[in-house]
Amino acid sequence: MANRNHAADKRLKVISFIREKREISRGDLAAAFSLDKKTVSDIVEELASESLIASSGFRESVAGRRQELLALNGNHSNFIGIDLGGTHIIGVLVDLTGTMLDRVFFEIRPGLPMEIILDQMKTICRKLMVSEKATASVRSICICAPGFFNPATGTSIMAANIPGWQDVNLREIFTAEFSRPTYTEDCSRAYALAEKLLGEAVGREDFIFADLGYGIGMAIFSDGRFLRGANNKAGEIGHTIVARDGPSCSCGNRGCLEAVASGRAIARNAAAGIDAGLSPLLKGLTHGKAESVTAQDVAIAASMGDTFSAELLHNAGSFAGLALANAVNIINPSLLILGGGLIGTNRIIEECVSRALATHCMREIFEDMELRASKLGMNGSALGCGLLAASEVLGMA
Amino acid sequence: MANRNHAADKRLKVISFIREKREISRGDLAAAFSLDKKTVSDIVEELASESLIASSGFRESVAGRRQELLALNGNHSNFIGIDLGGTHIIGVLVDLTGTMLDRVFFEIRPGLPMEIILDQMKTICRKLMVSEKATASVRSICICAPGFFNPATGTSIMAANIPGWQDVNLREIFTAEFSRPTYTEDCSRAYALAEKLLGEAVGREDFIFADLGYGIGMAIFSDGRFLRGANNKAGEIGHTIVARDGPSCSCGNRGCLEAVASGRAIARNAAAGIDAGLSPLLKGLTHGKAESVTAQDVAIAASMGDTFSAELLHNAGSFAGLALANAVNIINPSLLILGGGLIGTNRIIEECVSRALATHCMREIFEDMELRASKLGMNGSALGCGLLAASEVLGMA
Repeated sequence: MANRNHAADKRLKVISFIREKREISRGDLAAAFSLDKKTVSDIVEELASESLIASSGFRESVAGRRQELLALNGNHSNFIGIDLGGTHIIGVLVDLTGTMLDRVFFEIRPGLPMEIILDQMKTICRKLMVSEKATASVRSICICAPGFFNPATGTSIMAANIPGWQDVNLREIFTAEFSRPTYTEDCSRAYALAEKLLGEAVGREDFIFADLGYGIGMAIFSDGRFLRGANNKAGEIGHTIVARDGPSCSCGNRGCLEAVASGRAIARNAAAGIDAGLSPLLKGLTHGKAESVTAQDVAIAASMGDTFSAELLHNAGSFAGLALANAVNIINPSLLILGGGLIGTNRIIEECVSRALATHCMREIFEDMELRASKLGMNGSALGCGLLAASEVLGMA
Repeated sequence: MANRNHAADKRLKVISFIREKREISRGDLAAAFSLDKKTVSDIVEELASESLIASSGFRESVAGRRQELLALNGNHSNFIGIDLGGTHIIGVLVDLTGTMLDRVFFEIRPGLPMEIILDQMKTICRKLMVSEKATASVRSICICAPGFFNPATGTSIMAANIPGWQDVNLREIFTAEFSRPTYTEDCSRAYALAEKLLGEAVGREDFIFADLGYGIGMAIFSDGRFLRGANNKAGEIGHTIVARDGPSCSCGNRGCLEAVASGRAIARNAAAGIDAGLSPLLKGLTHGKAESVTAQDVAIAASMGDTFSAELLHNAGSFAGLALANAVNIINPSLLILGGGLIGTNRIIEECVSRALATHCMREIFEDMELRASKLGMNGSALGCGLLAASEVLGMA
């Protein structure tokens, strides 16, 4: 028992190392874990015999000898990651290394009932199961959704913006439908896992991922692992209070960050502004249908010089930066990654967040921290889900 | 190497178990770790031979047989814990079990220079070294101070309220003076360790300790360990922003919790109120010296019916509750412990914190959480330091 655990630990460390470095030689392994040649050989042989790793080429050593390089074997198995976001469903097919092989996108119009959403998720999954771009059979599925999950059952407890969505047991539904193990994860943590393995946080042990989109979420990675909280609900920065007695929030409280700075809040404020005649430009962009205006429209109007729209983004970014400064003062990360739909589309929000962080963080804590913008775009959460499914095959989930 | 680590791990788990349960039988050990009689015997013998554990009595088993009970051996060694707080220095002498054997208290009047403070800390340490109440020789010292520590060097980086206190290498100073290993820790984390081992958090794996006093701090214990942050600075809830553009804070920013809700802020607001003639009662309590008023005076005045003082406490408690709700929404703890000088002296603050938590926490996260008031009082941080020093002897630090 004891020795088995120890060997399993060593195997897991080696897999983690290969996954993070992407390509390593036997010598790298020996050096990283102070192992002798024989032990390295044994582990490599074991992983190769299970097809989890494969030769990926050669490298010239300093001494001039060719060293074989090893990497995770993309052809071992494929995985499906599905991100049920606030405004879209994205499904991706990935291999063991996290390489994206195929992708399906579905836009969610506001008010779509739960049955349609669930049907679309299944349709996306079905398409990816038979994708021509697959490099192996699909081994498992991972789904992320907004709101809380019960990790014991895989139940999505609620999604405020989908009528009827309550206690949806995604694990049960998808396991039954596709005869594959199905995992679930919080959207922001899934995105952060993609950052950790493929994005801005490779090699980092303490970072925060801020998910600024239609809703607002956050994932905390501290001292080498996710902080999940006592009941898997950690990270609700969207419901921290930034304006006491501020506007009502979907959660039932007042003055939450999400009520003043989310894509949804920006759209709501923009619609009110159009109705009040504050932005003819925005009104034109939405063909007079104020209720259909999106944060994306506001970003476009702002870049066209609309001061009302710029002010909306400025306000949202400043509040987001204040809430993030509070989280940073509490967590002391070495890296803060800004991601989500509001980042990357418009520089105003990013600049305001950055300025508010500099203003509101403790100087000593701000100086410890690097600020980066995510480059994974809309696919981050779906990719993270795929990587999480792959983690299970690798013995890491 | 591998087996030695494994044995050390097992030993550590057994020590943790005995420390947490305080008294256990050999049968309890066997059951808790699925160990056979022989292995239990070996471990117990090893720890007993090092005098780390000792027989502490007997218990009648269900079968009627007497079972010997084992506990940590208080007489193994003693430890000194020193808490440099905002308004006091407290030194305690504890044994291996954390039992407090002796205590020395020194009140810090505002403006005392660094040299005097450091001298007093040494005097307190010297007194405890020769205490008649000692049960063994002093093995090591642990000191906590406000502000940040460099854990690598044991340097206290700064203490805003002590003139001249900057980059004080407490580890070096005390190791040289007392020829004992000296450790350092953040005040709130030291307090939280005492809660974990002797107080409200025994057996808990996810809790937050809120340190509401002259300054405001917080310790986060998540999934079985402290969250320290990338550079040991996590927990600065006192410098989260609760009122954008609010009053200036000692940290240089505006609107920090500490600037509106700390003992220091309450005293400052009370002094301004006395000067403005808003509270004759408070003026009388301080014999007309407005600048000498303390949060304690405000609490006394409030309990005597002074509405100005009650309003000050109400305001402080409401802001503290808001900031804590934000932390709770981010961390999702199963327990929040309220401690520090402002708690226990006056119910108004505790009630306002509690009400603000209920108002501002997400309902689903609030329902996961128990709220408790600390019972360790002023000694919590010093006791925690003593326990931390003891941890090192037990191989846990």
